[in-house]
Amino acid sequence: MRAVDIIMKKRNGESLSYEELSFLIEGYVSGDIPDYQMSSWLMSVYFSGMTPRETGDLTALMMRSGEVLDLSSLEGPLVDKHSTGGVGDKTSFILAPVAAACGIQVPMMSGRALGHTGGTLDKLESLKGYRIHLEQEEILRIMEQTGYVIMGQTERIVPADRKMYALRDVTATVESIPLITASILSKKLAEGAQGLVFDVKCGSGAFMKTREQASLLAESLVSTGKAMGRRIIAVLTSMEEPLGCAVGNFLEVEEAWECLGGRGPEDLMEISLTLASRMLVAGGICTDSEKALSLCREKIDNGEASRIFLENMEAQGGDVEWFLENTGRWRAPAGAVLEADRDGYIQSINAYETGMASVSLGAGRSRAEDPVEPHTGIRFLRKSGDFVKKGEAVCEIFALNKEQADNAVAQMEHAVTMGETPPAAVTRIIREIF
Amino acid sequence: MRAVDIIMKKRNGESLSYEELSFLIEGYVSGDIPDYQMSSWLMSVYFSGMTPRETGDLTALMMRSGEVLDLSSLEGPLVDKHSTGGVGDKTSFILAPVAAACGIQVPMMSGRALGHTGGTLDKLESLKGYRIHLEQEEILRIMEQTGYVIMGQTERIVPADRKMYALRDVTATVESIPLITASILSKKLAEGAQGLVFDVKCGSGAFMKTREQASLLAESLVSTGKAMGRRIIAVLTSMEEPLGCAVGNFLEVEEAWECLGGRGPEDLMEISLTLASRMLVAGGICTDSEKALSLCREKIDNGEASRIFLENMEAQGGDVEWFLENTGRWRAPAGAVLEADRDGYIQSINAYETGMASVSLGAGRSRAEDPVEPHTGIRFLRKSGDFVKKGEAVCEIFALNKEQADNAVAQMEHAVTMGETPPAAVTRIIREIF
Repeated sequence: MRAVDIIMKKRNGESLSYEELSFLIEGYVSGDIPDYQMSSWLMSVYFSGMTPRETGDLTALMMRSGEVLDLSSLEGPLVDKHSTGGVGDKTSFILAPVAAACGIQVPMMSGRALGHTGGTLDKLESLKGYRIHLEQEEILRIMEQTGYVIMGQTERIVPADRKMYALRDVTATVESIPLITASILSKKLAEGAQGLVFDVKCGSGAFMKTREQASLLAESLVSTGKAMGRRIIAVLTSMEEPLGCAVGNFLEVEEAWECLGGRGPEDLMEISLTLASRMLVAGGICTDSEKALSLCREKIDNGEASRIFLENMEAQGGDVEWFLENTGRWRAPAGAVLEADRDGYIQSINAYETGMASVSLGAGRSRAEDPVEPHTGIRFLRKSGDFVKKGEAVCEIFALNKEQADNAVAQMEHAVTMGETPPAAVTRIIREIF
Repeated sequence: MRAVDIIMKKRNGESLSYEELSFLIEGYVSGDIPDYQMSSWLMSVYFSGMTPRETGDLTALMMRSGEVLDLSSLEGPLVDKHSTGGVGDKTSFILAPVAAACGIQVPMMSGRALGHTGGTLDKLESLKGYRIHLEQEEILRIMEQTGYVIMGQTERIVPADRKMYALRDVTATVESIPLITASILSKKLAEGAQGLVFDVKCGSGAFMKTREQASLLAESLVSTGKAMGRRIIAVLTSMEEPLGCAVGNFLEVEEAWECLGGRGPEDLMEISLTLASRMLVAGGICTDSEKALSLCREKIDNGEASRIFLENMEAQGGDVEWFLENTGRWRAPAGAVLEADRDGYIQSINAYETGMASVSLGAGRSRAEDPVEPHTGIRFLRKSGDFVKKGEAVCEIFALNKEQADNAVAQMEHAVTMGETPPAAVTRIIREIF
């Protein structure tokens, strides 16, 4: 077998066999196949696509290029949720304890902030003591104890994806549905999940800008999962405006805690509980998604989910006492407020621009090696559809210094659009694919 | 400017500016742009194509990556011919002295045998003393003296093509019309030619197997040449069966000599003189191609072309006396004959299979580093359309030993197809594009 023949076959629009994909991926990881052949193959996949069977084989090969967590000793279905990334997206902190309260085991490997989107790991690290680097035994112990774990990806998980993603990034081969599918799925399956719920976001603040693109990715994730014998549900959700009212690290954990106490913003509650209910369906705990949703609400109302949230915080090393004392209070030193410049209805809040304002406050990062600030960010007091009077506060900024705060106010002025009549209602949950 | 943005732009089907192409090609040659970015760009060109303006810019940039011959001191139009390669293709040895006799200056850089096709340089090196490695002053002197020169490409000519071709070869990006166009044209223009005639061959023994592929390449060569302000004529010719009767090195030079003496096979004469006449048109010596053709025939009939052929041989170091003594006589030691196995008409002689039989005789090479034999090969006594009786000789084989000869006879048995009725006439000159 020769790499050039495999590249040519894909270039000519043919399907590759498992053996051919295996030759390519194993050869690339071992260094036998050079970057220049891999990159031309990646570009041929960009143009020629892959069948669900091929994407499934690629996913399995990438997954097996490294360590795969063995969580088979745990009781209860192993189901995780993955979001394609957005602004103010803190659903994990809500749905994980809710799903755990319903009997799901959630082994969640999360990522860092990059570009305009925040990172689950950065948010958790704003909590005093919280540890996201865990060994296999700890993972098992914490899951047994609390029903979920949120952790960083180790170097040993899916090395093929790390190597391929670095190459795709510099060869204009990121935007390929089968390659994105295999990259996401291989990592999720390596963490031991049997069922998966995908939150495929679309809109200004998402990776996929249009419903068409997002639908293609959602369909590819589901069909590839099926080809691999996994239970996968994809939910398309809107990411035109930030999710919830908080954008930042500690600010977002805090908002999740409000949601678990039943006091969270409606959009964030709706999306978090919908995703949690689909995890119950994917895990086989419920067959009816409406019933699953009621069960999830019950776990909020009876306080079980918030109890599990604190148990997990403690189990992963977090200082619960510190958290409860600081929640609602811990803020970066320099504050500023964006006031409405006239009476009117908020028409829209651009998620991408809000994300970039948050990056400029140090809550996100523009380069992978940058540090993040735990307590800077933006908190909305009003959102789209709300009527505000001139001079009324739209959002608060928490910054390291006054200059940074003023700069963020200017950015948010641009992100918020006002109008005289109420805007059209936004569909938050666009479509479900399973 | 970043390479990844240029790749993405081409991937998205946009045209690249001269500055972008220059950044890419100069960066690649200098080593600033790595192979893995170049190969993904090459694959994006394979899929997205290039406009004639882009292909022209790429050609000019590749040409200028190295040395460009300065032949401006020569009187008379500088016109060369380039063939995309075939079996038994020795037209250069005929048309160069013919065109030179008509007042054209022919600076011809040729290649080596590879795969099933022979190499002009290998054929010339079968002549005792003939030198194909020449310095700039020698080139000028020989052209002034004889009107043409046939030489090897130096390391200093178009280094961009050498580096890019090596990469294309292993990344399945050879078969791209704009890339083939730029590769061919950059080398031809670097040798100082102002006008060019292309012999674009199609059929079993050619690089382009179908008329459609060959037409696309011919059109691209002509339109790119136009975009660069050069006079280019492309002639599509058939390469279903070997050209002329001789396939080998010395055997082919010998057959060219027969043609120059007016005793050559009809197909070879027709194609050689047609190409020579188009060189006269491309060089502005004639405006009418029929008149040009008569002028070319005249140079054969009055012996001027054969005189120039011998003058060139002498000027390039060849031993004319040795050649005249050996022509028609110098043969590899082991001979064999393929006889007709029944009465009938020869339907076809597969050019590719004949080329491969020639390779097995050592007249060609399967790896670039293999040596070639000067005096082995195949000589047809009968060609397609001829009636032969059972036992009559179809072709002679000249080999190093009996085993090799018998093996070649078996290969040629397979290459020659017999039938009871005369085959349909073959169109030798399919189409002209200018």
